[in-house]
This record gives sequence, structure tokens and C-alpha cells, in this order.
Amino acid sequence: MSTQAVASLQAEVNKLRHELQTVRLNGQLSPLAGETMYVGQYLVERLAQLGVTKMFGVPGDFNLGFLDFVEDHPLIEWVGNCNELNAAYAADGYARVSEGKPGVLLTTFGVGELSAMNGIAGAFSEHVPVLHIAGVPSTSQQKAKPMLHHTLGDGRYDAYYKAAQEFTIAQATLATKENAAAEIDRILTECIVMARPVYLMLPTDVAYQRIPVTRLETPLNLEPPENDADVEAFVLDEIVKLVEEAKNDVIILVDACAIRHGVKAEVKELYERTGFPVYAAPMGKTAVDETYDRYGGIYVGSISHEAIKEKVESAKLILSVGGLKSDFNTGNFTYSIPTSRTIELHSDHTRVQFAGFPGIGMKRLLPKLTHRLQPFKEGAFKCEVPKFQLPIPQEDNDDISQKFLWPRVGQFFKSNDIIVAETGTSSFGVLDIPLPSGAMFVSQILWGSIGWTVGSTLGAAYAAQDRGLGRTILFIGDGSLQLTVQELSVMIRSKLKPIIFVLNNSGYTIERYLHGMDRKYNDISNWRWTKLLEAFGGEEGKTAKSYRVTTKQELSSLLDDETFAKAEVIQLVELVMPQKDAPRALKVQAELSGKTNRYTAD
Amino acid sequence: MSTQAVASLQAEVNKLRHELQTVRLNGQLSPLAGETMYVGQYLVERLAQLGVTKMFGVPGDFNLGFLDFVEDHPLIEWVGNCNELNAAYAADGYARVSEGKPGVLLTTFGVGELSAMNGIAGAFSEHVPVLHIAGVPSTSQQKAKPMLHHTLGDGRYDAYYKAAQEFTIAQATLATKENAAAEIDRILTECIVMARPVYLMLPTDVAYQRIPVTRLETPLNLEPPENDADVEAFVLDEIVKLVEEAKNDVIILVDACAIRHGVKAEVKELYERTGFPVYAAPMGKTAVDETYDRYGGIYVGSISHEAIKEKVESAKLILSVGGLKSDFNTGNFTYSIPTSRTIELHSDHTRVQFAGFPGIGMKRLLPKLTHRLQPFKEGAFKCEVPKFQLPIPQEDNDDISQKFLWPRVGQFFKSNDIIVAETGTSSFGVLDIPLPSGAMFVSQILWGSIGWTVGSTLGAAYAAQDRGLGRTILFIGDGSLQLTVQELSVMIRSKLKPIIFVLNNSGYTIERYLHGMDRKYNDISNWRWTKLLEAFGGEEGKTAKSYRVTTKQELSSLLDDETFAKAEVIQLVELVMPQKDAPRALKVQAELSGKTNRYTAD
Repeated sequence: MSTQAVASLQAEVNKLRHELQTVRLNGQLSPLAGETMYVGQYLVERLAQLGVTKMFGVPGDFNLGFLDFVEDHPLIEWVGNCNELNAAYAADGYARVSEGKPGVLLTTFGVGELSAMNGIAGAFSEHVPVLHIAGVPSTSQQKAKPMLHHTLGDGRYDAYYKAAQEFTIAQATLATKENAAAEIDRILTECIVMARPVYLMLPTDVAYQRIPVTRLETPLNLEPPENDADVEAFVLDEIVKLVEEAKNDVIILVDACAIRHGVKAEVKELYERTGFPVYAAPMGKTAVDETYDRYGGIYVGSISHEAIKEKVESAKLILSVGGLKSDFNTGNFTYSIPTSRTIELHSDHTRVQFAGFPGIGMKRLLPKLTHRLQPFKEGAFKCEVPKFQLPIPQEDNDDISQKFLWPRVGQFFKSNDIIVAETGTSSFGVLDIPLPSGAMFVSQILWGSIGWTVGSTLGAAYAAQDRGLGRTILFIGDGSLQLTVQELSVMIRSKLKPIIFVLNNSGYTIERYLHGMDRKYNDISNWRWTKLLEAFGGEEGKTAKSYRVTTKQELSSLLDDETFAKAEVIQLVELVMPQKDAPRALKVQAELSGKTNRYTAD
Repeated sequence: MSTQAVASLQAEVNKLRHELQTVRLNGQLSPLAGETMYVGQYLVERLAQLGVTKMFGVPGDFNLGFLDFVEDHPLIEWVGNCNELNAAYAADGYARVSEGKPGVLLTTFGVGELSAMNGIAGAFSEHVPVLHIAGVPSTSQQKAKPMLHHTLGDGRYDAYYKAAQEFTIAQATLATKENAAAEIDRILTECIVMARPVYLMLPTDVAYQRIPVTRLETPLNLEPPENDADVEAFVLDEIVKLVEEAKNDVIILVDACAIRHGVKAEVKELYERTGFPVYAAPMGKTAVDETYDRYGGIYVGSISHEAIKEKVESAKLILSVGGLKSDFNTGNFTYSIPTSRTIELHSDHTRVQFAGFPGIGMKRLLPKLTHRLQPFKEGAFKCEVPKFQLPIPQEDNDDISQKFLWPRVGQFFKSNDIIVAETGTSSFGVLDIPLPSGAMFVSQILWGSIGWTVGSTLGAAYAAQDRGLGRTILFIGDGSLQLTVQELSVMIRSKLKPIIFVLNNSGYTIERYLHGMDRKYNDISNWRWTKLLEAFGGEEGKTAKSYRVTTKQELSSLLDDETFAKAEVIQLVELVMPQKDAPRALKVQAELSGKTNRYTAD
């Protein structure tokens, strides 16, 4: 049986289990009135209702009791991570590839939750729904404030909560059983609707208090709020007017929040039914099917390929969907598009040229907009869209250059693959390659925490398994992999089968381009990459395979190898590459960054 | 040349270099009036004046310019860590073993600094002076607040600072060059005097602004404030009165803050000149030379060995020095010592029975107290002190049991060894062994973050090298090592030679004792421990050696091997041990914890 088939079956099993659960909870099999359950169980049930299948984290003394509920639940699997930061990254990756479900992270008081903080802040920055549950001392201890281990020693039991407030959209402390269920529901709703992380303090005793089960019968309302009808109608008229005036010279630019706030399907309707050419920003890559014939590629301001830049910036009207204009997502703020030619659709507001319309969200606006703009289709087709492609260059050396690598691996990708690209050379490299239909690009372009992709790959691979998607393929530099490397062992233990390409270029190459090209601080220690999987518990050649390739020819042979491509075990490929080589886009970005953020007094 | 001799030479070189620097700065070689230097250079110079020889951290785009100053400084070495949490742990370990110097951590904005947060909070909790420098965007960017990478995407440039405030004793943002030097001096002084972490935001541009160099000629005043003379005299009289009333039945109990607040020498004077029996709390272990003939061992409330418990709790007066009464440091708050029989000396206050004396600090009080109490010496000697020892038990099996392990490795330790023990089985295990003269016990008993010892061992080994101390020996469980394992590669690259004992007992044993003895969530994946050093860049058998021992006999042979004991390369020993075995003290502690912090509703 193929991996694909097994994955589909697994997904089917999960779906059925969940359906069964829902039916049961709806009282069709067992009426729940009068029944009670533990608060901890309520939380786990709510997660199961949302389709969550995995919980990430590290056990710790204040979450062990709650973990019993997790381990005993038929639909949710506990994934014990090596450390909390990796676990937070995994929850983030899981949420991204799940598209709609939250990632869930469980840590313990202080030591655990603080270790995860960078991961949670990244999810905040990049609009990813992650629930962070911190198991904390009992309510009586929180009142008495003894000098417990994992405390700051000065009685401040609220310090971690205060820190968490900076990086989450909503927080709750379950201080009594009376409001526990309502609080759980509130922050879960915020998490999904706002697509941001939330924080839940779960005291050991409250997890084991009993509450009525009936509330579970009402599913959470996860719909975004309705738009005000009058304002919405006005906005639609305004947009239609501008489209008319643009005389078919309209393009659609899709960005991060189209993915994160769940409007990929609505955007597809829009571009297919209107025929307007469609482009994506880096963080919006694969929001649009990159094989679609009116898709023009990636727009990154002045870093864009010339043809794309010209097409986007000369359009009379740009319909921007889910824009997130960070430095690396815009070619260091070099969009050359005047506001007077821009319409911006966001999750919670709309902008038409200079006018802002708070509360007019795109989820509800888009279908209506598509309806109104359909009549323009015939005209729209008059505007040609040059094909987005990247041919493999002819080079007269054997080196695995950046120029060669990316288009070559581009040929290796298949439909529905998950391509995870680490900040730096990898994310800049993958941007230029058109990905196959259904493929997903996963990267952290705004937050940019190196090492993030390792945990993220773990979560992404699990989510891909749930959804019956393709292979999970990671590209990461040697420097970045060293931050979070131990999570490879969790992939081995979990029998996940990612392909991990390690770009061994002896150090932090993105930083060399920013500053200190030959500085020692940009060097790292050289590991024996092909020995890692074995050290982490894999059986080399059986449950894990490692490769080292140093030439174009070796790389091509490996990529053409059918057994390799099937990805039936975890595989790690060390790509030995020239130290100071970098993708084109990275070089330009570094140059632009250096201008606005000077590193020395020179 | 022996390792020891090389280390001494190295320490001598460092000392001389520093002396030279001080002389130069004092204007004896080159008058500095009128000269200027960069703010970044000023900061590095101040650290060099404090004797700092290493800076830990990870390079990132907002600290690269500053790193040039670090890399170019003759006295400070940049240690590039694998990740920021490990780096924070290393800075903490370095500060502990240096005794008086701060550990220094350098990270980048957001992604870097937040990853280190747990490490900084731990230093706060355990009174360790760590300077956390975060390289941040330029002052103009902090005003304009563009959506840079590493930001939260919502313009909140102060969120990380706010979070850092929760876990540091003082903070500074170098917003202008005018107050930069004063701010640097302020937080460095706080760091050392308070023995707590401090946080410094260093914008890229300010690091490269020029300031007068003259301020460097005045060394920082790191002395604790004077005690009020009248109050101090009163306190001394009160204490002497109580000692008289106790009729020679006085004991001294030394705890964490005696080490952290730098009064080990003063305490030694006190116990040697008075002859009062002296005991230590777990966190104060090795504050007192454990071979001293009037040292009685470790007091941990009801977890103490019976003889120790009886001696301490029956004393008429307990002179507690630097007490830090956390749960794991007091046998879960089971001190059976009434306040009426207690005198507490702290860094910033004194308590005599029920009366508090704020501002009366022990650093200045102790010498005067010793002087006043010397006359009691003859009487004090009447009180016998049973020898603190732990014989190796006879067991009729081959297993490396906890009961066997600790006294057996106790015989392996030498003078001036640094013994680093991970929270859990290791720290509880080492507590019971008397350590040789000059040995240092390094553990994190209050904060208790698992994985901490790996980074900490790196920093400790560097500090030991500086001071010409002995071997650095780490005891850590398999579960804990997985959190922070990559830092072993930095030890290899740095040619440090710690001995790492990995207690392979298949999971989180301390947690099994707390809750979930047979739960899956307390299992971890089994690694091939003896392959790790090689994978991380060591040459097995040459620059790194790995061993696996499964029986008492194998362990003893290894420990008796002279080459092994010399520790001339990094060595890792996998100790295969029974899964559910634990040191006596851990079992009792877990039982007590479970009573106050119930894990389920049962």
C-alpha cells in the first residue's frame, strides 16, 4: 500500500472518529443532560470538536494530571517534543498546514512556557492560531504564593501571564470551575476567528473539577462577524466603479492573510470568475495555484523579476487581498504602487484608495465582490500574463550553486507537496520556483526566527498526514538546523517521512550578506550531518536514510531516484554548497536592508 | 604539559592581560583625556574591566555591527552558541563558576531575546548576575516603527522590553549617546551588586556613536552599600545575646545566597573562628568545604538524613546565612526550626527571631559578627559533628542503581572539580555525596528548568579554565539532555573537556515519581548516545570519546581508568540504568509534593 493511500486512510479514520464523537456529543447516541465531566476533559473535547488531532509540548510537573486526559482521549494524540520552543514551532506548522484548526501547545509553569515564548510571538506576528496551555500550580497555591520550584522566588505568580499578554491576542486563567468552560470557549473562539495565539493558564486543581457537559452540545461559533450591510454595499459600489474606470487593467495581488484568515477558496472564485491576472507576495505564495494560467508569479517590489514588476506596477488598479507589508515581503518597502490605484481587503477592514472602512472583512465581502465583478471577465482576458517559470541555467562547473539548486529541485516537487523553507537562503530560493498544483509553501518571512522550520516541519508533516496531502520537504541551512535539530528525533519516533535538505554552506550566509562576510562570528561548527539520524535513533538504511551530495550531477541523480522520491522513510540530504553563494533575491534584499539599517559608522 | 598546567597558564595570561588593560585605562601608560570611542566599544571595555573573558549568544542582523567590537577585543572571546536558550544557560553557568563576574549574553531583537527568556528568568530566580544585551533596530526605526522582520507586525517595538522587565532587576535602552555610558554603568552595577540579570537594548546606530573615553578611568563601584552603624551595632548585640543564651548549642546553616552574594570567604571566617558546627542547604552545597571536620552535611527539612535532621533541629540557635527557602531546598517546606531560634543573614536585610532589619546586609555584617563571636569558640567545640559521608552499599545485582552510582562517583571526584547536576535524579543524587575540597556544586534547584545544565556546563567549563580549576563533570538524564543537546558541539569546537554522564533511564523519571509512573507521556525516544559526539563534529577516539556502561563493574573500571580520569578530551558516558529507580531524596520529595499539589481528583 502506498504512503499516499495509507495517509488517506488515516485521514478517513480521523474524520470518522470525529464524526462519531460529534454525533455522540449532539446527544444522538447518549443524552448528556445532567452529566458532568472534568474541566480538563472539557478542554480536550472542545479541541477534538475543532478537529485537532495532535497536541505538542513537554510534560512538566504542573501539567501531568491534565496530560492523563490527553493521553486517554481517542481522537487526540500527545506528541512529546524534545523542548518547548520546538513544540511551539510544531504547533505553528500544524496550524498552518491544517488551515482552520488551531495548533495546540502544552507546557508547564515558568520554565516551560517561557521557553516557548519566541514560538508564540512568531505565531502572533504571522497570524497563526495557536492555543498555548500552561499547566500551573493549584488555585490555593496561587493565592498563598509559596516559593515553589519554577517560580521567580519573590512571590510574583503573575509574571508569566503578564509576559504572555504581550504576545497573545487573548488570555485566560481558569480560576474557578464556574467560568472555566466559558473562558475556554472564549479564547478558542478568539484564537480561530482572529488567527492568532491565545494563552490559557490551567491550575492543577481546576483541571480536575467537574462541570456540566451540556455546553459541549453547542458548537463554537467560529464565523467572522457580519459586515454592516450599508457600508458593505457602499464599498462594493466604489470598487466596481474603480474597476470600470481601470478599463480591464486590473490585477489581483494575494498575500499572507488570504491564507491565514481562510479565504483561499473565495479568492480562487474571484480570480477565476473575473479572469483578472493574479500575483502573490512572498508570504502569499501558494495561496494561488501556481500552475493556474493567469497566475503571474511573485511580486516583491523592486526585488521582483523585471517582467512581474512591470506588469504589477503598471496596472491601473490593484486588488490586494490579505496584504502584510513587512520589509522582506515587499522588497524592503519598495512597492511602487500608489494608494490611489489600490484596493486593500483585510480580515477586519477594507481600504478603497485613501478611504478606510473598519469592520468590513474580506471573508464576507469577497463572494459579493466576485459576483459583482464577473461581468468584467471578457475584458480582463485581453490582458496577457507572462508565464511564471524559472529554467535551469547552464553553468560550466560542478558546484551546487544557488542558481542551479532551486529550479532543479523545482522539477522534483509534486502536487500537494508541503515545501517548508527556512528564513534566509532557503526562503528566498524557493520564492522564485513555481510550485505544483496543490503544493503549499510554508515559511516565516515576517518573524524570521532561524531554526523555526524544524519544529514546523514536524507539525506540518502531521497535518499533511491528516489531510492526505503529499510529501513534506524541508530546506534549511546548516546554521539554522543547529538551533532546533533534536526535533528530527521526534520525526523518527513518530515515523514521519519528511525529506530534509541541509544546505551546508559553513555558517550563517544570510548574515554574511548583511554584515561581516568573513567574520568568525558567522562561522559555525561543521557537523557530520549524515550521522545525525542514526544518533537520534534512526536505523540508517532502514528507518532513516542520509545522503551527501557535492555536485550537480550527484544531486540530479538523487532527485531522479524513484525510491528517494517516494519518501517512504525520513531522509536527510546534505547539500555541500559554496559558502558565499546566495539566491539573487537575498543579495538584493541584504543590500536594501543595509541601506536603512546601517551596521557600522563607515 | 598537563591540562591543569595549561589551564593555570591560561588563567595567568588572562589575569596579566587584564592587569595591563587596567593600567592602561588608569592613564598610567596612555592618558585618555580627549579621546573618544564607540559606545559599543565602551560596553566591551567595561566588561573587560570586570574580568569578563567570554560572551555567549547567537549573531543576528541587529547585533552584527556590535559583534565586530567583541571579535576585535583582545580580552573577550565570542562564543557562538547553537541557540539563544543554550547561550543564556551558558552565561548563567559562567557567572556561577566565575563568582563575581557577570555572564554576558548577546541576542538579536525579538526572535533571539525571547528564545533566551527562560534562561534569564532562571538567573533572576536563582540570583545569578547575567547581562543580556539585545541588538535592536536603530533609534530612527524605533521611532518610525516600520514592519521590520522580527517585529510583531503591529508596531509595538516595546513589547520585548516590557516582557524583559518581568525577569530582570534593571533595564536600559540606549536611546542617545549622551547617557549611554551612564546607563551601561548603572545596569552593570545593579547586575553585580544585586546578583541578578539585567537587560540592555542596544540600537544598531547607537553602538557606533562616539563618546568620551574618560569615564572608563573610574572603575565601577561594586561594593554593597554600608549598613547603618546604629542599627548594625544593635543587631550585633542582639545576636551575641542570643548566642550566649544558647550556651554553645549554636549551628550555622549556609544556603544559596552565601554563594551568589559573594560571602563564602566571610562565612568561612565565621565558622572556622567560632567553631560552630556548620551545615548547608541543597542550594548552598559547597559553600562550605565539605571536607571541613566540623561540617555536618546537607539539611533539607524532613528529607534530611536522620542524624543531620536531629542535630540541626535540636540546636538552640540557628544562624542561617543566605537562606532561600524554596520547596525543593527545604524538603517541601518541612524545616522544623521555630523562628524564635533563628537568625537570618541576607544580602540586604537581617532577621533576629521575629524582628526584621532592612538594609543590614551580610557582606558587611559578617566580619563584625565573626569578631564578636570568636570568644565562644572553646565552648562551641563541645558540640560534636558526626561526619558527613555516604558509603557504597553492597548490592547483589549488577545494575547501576541510584544507590550505588552516587557514592561510587563520589570517589571519582577530585579537588576543585566542578560538579554540574541536572534538576531531578542527578541533583538529588549528588546532594548526598560529600564533595572534595574546593569542588563546586552547580545546580538549579529553585528554577529547575530541565536541560539547563548543558549550556551551563559550557559556561562553567570556560570559567573553570579561567580560574585554573579542575574538571567539569556533568550528570544529566536522557530526557533533559534532549532539550539542549546541540551545545555539546560547541564544547567540541571550543576544545573544552567536560565529562558528561548521561543517565539513560528511558524517560522523565522525576516526573514518573510525581505523576504518571507508566504513562506514555513520560517516555522519550531512545537515542544512540555514543554516536552523538561524532555526529556533532568530534573525532571519536581522538577529539572525543564515548562510552556505554551497563553494570557496576563496567562503571568502576571506567572510573578507575587513569586516562579517562585525566579528561583530556570531551567524554560522554552513557549509564544504562533501571527505569524506575530514583535517589532516596527524590522519592521523598515527590511524595511530599504530591500532597500539596495533587495531580488528579483521586
